[in-house]
Amino acid sequence: MIIDCHGHYTTTPKALKAWRNAQIANLNTPELGPKVSDLKISDDEIRESIENNQLARMRERGIDVTIFSPQASAMSHHIGDFNTSATWAALCNELCYRVTQLFPNHFIGAAMLPQSPGVDISTCLPEMRKCISEYGFVGINLNPDPSGGHWRDPPLSHPQWHPIYEEMIALDVPAMIHVSTSCNECFHTVGAHYLNADTTAFMQCLTSDLFAQFPTLRFVIPHGGGAVPYHWGRFRGLAKDMNIPDINQKLLNNIYFDTCVYHQPGINLLTEVIPVKNILFASETIGAVKGIDPETGFYFDDTRRYLNAVDSLSNQEKAMIFEGNARKVFPRINNRIPK
Amino acid sequence: MIIDCHGHYTTTPKALKAWRNAQIANLNTPELGPKVSDLKISDDEIRESIENNQLARMRERGIDVTIFSPQASAMSHHIGDFNTSATWAALCNELCYRVTQLFPNHFIGAAMLPQSPGVDISTCLPEMRKCISEYGFVGINLNPDPSGGHWRDPPLSHPQWHPIYEEMIALDVPAMIHVSTSCNECFHTVGAHYLNADTTAFMQCLTSDLFAQFPTLRFVIPHGGGAVPYHWGRFRGLAKDMNIPDINQKLLNNIYFDTCVYHQPGINLLTEVIPVKNILFASETIGAVKGIDPETGFYFDDTRRYLNAVDSLSNQEKAMIFEGNARKVFPRINNRIPK
Repeated sequence: MIIDCHGHYTTTPKALKAWRNAQIANLNTPELGPKVSDLKISDDEIRESIENNQLARMRERGIDVTIFSPQASAMSHHIGDFNTSATWAALCNELCYRVTQLFPNHFIGAAMLPQSPGVDISTCLPEMRKCISEYGFVGINLNPDPSGGHWRDPPLSHPQWHPIYEEMIALDVPAMIHVSTSCNECFHTVGAHYLNADTTAFMQCLTSDLFAQFPTLRFVIPHGGGAVPYHWGRFRGLAKDMNIPDINQKLLNNIYFDTCVYHQPGINLLTEVIPVKNILFASETIGAVKGIDPETGFYFDDTRRYLNAVDSLSNQEKAMIFEGNARKVFPRINNRIPK
Repeated sequence: MIIDCHGHYTTTPKALKAWRNAQIANLNTPELGPKVSDLKISDDEIRESIENNQLARMRERGIDVTIFSPQASAMSHHIGDFNTSATWAALCNELCYRVTQLFPNHFIGAAMLPQSPGVDISTCLPEMRKCISEYGFVGINLNPDPSGGHWRDPPLSHPQWHPIYEEMIALDVPAMIHVSTSCNECFHTVGAHYLNADTTAFMQCLTSDLFAQFPTLRFVIPHGGGAVPYHWGRFRGLAKDMNIPDINQKLLNNIYFDTCVYHQPGINLLTEVIPVKNILFASETIGAVKGIDPETGFYFDDTRRYLNAVDSLSNQEKAMIFEGNARKVFPRINNRIPK
């Protein structure tokens, strides 16, 4: 079985975007709507949006299951206040829940949180609990920069984040550390901000005692870990200079990298430098890069091909990356999809 | 001959730091000093600080020449105003100039600019001209984020930067795009902010027509290009989705990556995916990572070893990376060090 741990509902029916635009238009006059009940999306519309897109690609590529969360760039936590995010997150999560109900063998949910810059993270707990306990979701996406590229909240090691970690541990779910749209014109969203956030989050973990405080906390750092594996020697060296005796011991019981790296040399490097137990298969399809690589004739984001082509991985190791590790990091998968 | 295009004066005599601390202590009362003339550093002190550090390593490793600029993290353009930066940059550049005079066969200068957040970049031109024309420097370091991790200035494609580009072209010098200390607690300076800035700058170039406007402008993106080579497929794919027919044509006549990647797999990837003509040898010694890699027994930043070990590069290609490309990107080297 192949489980893709990183998929987003990027192909939602148009009514969702229209609803969000109306919400943004009335940020200062929410009494003018839209109401939650104004959003009308039928099951058939959802089916069509999935069958012709994510599910079609999964079938072409032999991917069985995708862990599916609301579109990351559209979370836009920087817009409005907590109530804005709360309503928006609830709508987006419910749509993903409906996808998981319509395609129970192929999609498992992960929750978007109703974060808002500077707002107590505890406000996200009710939505998180609903998604995990009622919707059967298996993880959450945690945005380390709800300001959208201004980085005004403190690092992930700061106590302000602790309530979410405590709940993650209580519910036995991991967080994918995933930013949203950049509203800082310096940062292109998927070309710079996403990758920068991955590297930033890793370094926040390296320079803190977060995992000593929360030994069972689990983070998935997406997009192949940003710049981290490519600069693994730099990070090992920085750790050594900081008198951290073993970076693997400090971080690699808690941090996992996905395989959203869209060419063969990148996947070769990732699997060469990062222990197999810390790598989770993912493609983020349909996501940041939509086209076909003229050099290969296949989709850039068809990451299964790159992994299949890594000769140095045994079949057992590939099975860990494709399935086994995801079941360990997201143990609630096992409630939904038996081994 | 081997030319290292990325070295900083990180080992300055202690008096420099003391002077800077005094400057910062009197930011609001600059009339209380310190004066430029208060800084006393003898030639012997400079000799000692170099011979026992950078030059010792260069001799051990067989590096002939280093392009040498003031310590990047200490530029701290976010501190004070233009006058603060102007005085500090002039002091730091003069010290590098003295290094190049004391060791004319081994060090060539590159200039720090007296940038200050939100201040017209034209204010940097006099210092830049002095360094190139009087001091014989061959390049500049351009900080794309003088705010120090808050990214409040516009992207490198914005017209506010044009005066510096026009002068670079007139003087035929490249810029290394290099940030300084992060004063945003989210970003570790050398573990996150530096790498993020590299990726960010690359993406600013990809999403603009900067090099169509300035076809002979040359940028060196340090630290192996941040996350860029590792995600080269992602960037090729993003370019394709943006209807950019050829990312190499758009960017690789103007952008060069250094080799400050501190392990063998990273250098293997860099040399596999980036054309040889776009790679410049560098180690940033003594810099971010100071220790010896227990896995190899050699310094993490001894990047010559990694390049020597890349079997797929011919001797001619290695000579381009070690020397030839630097002479093309920094043509003023040829005035100082004959081929």
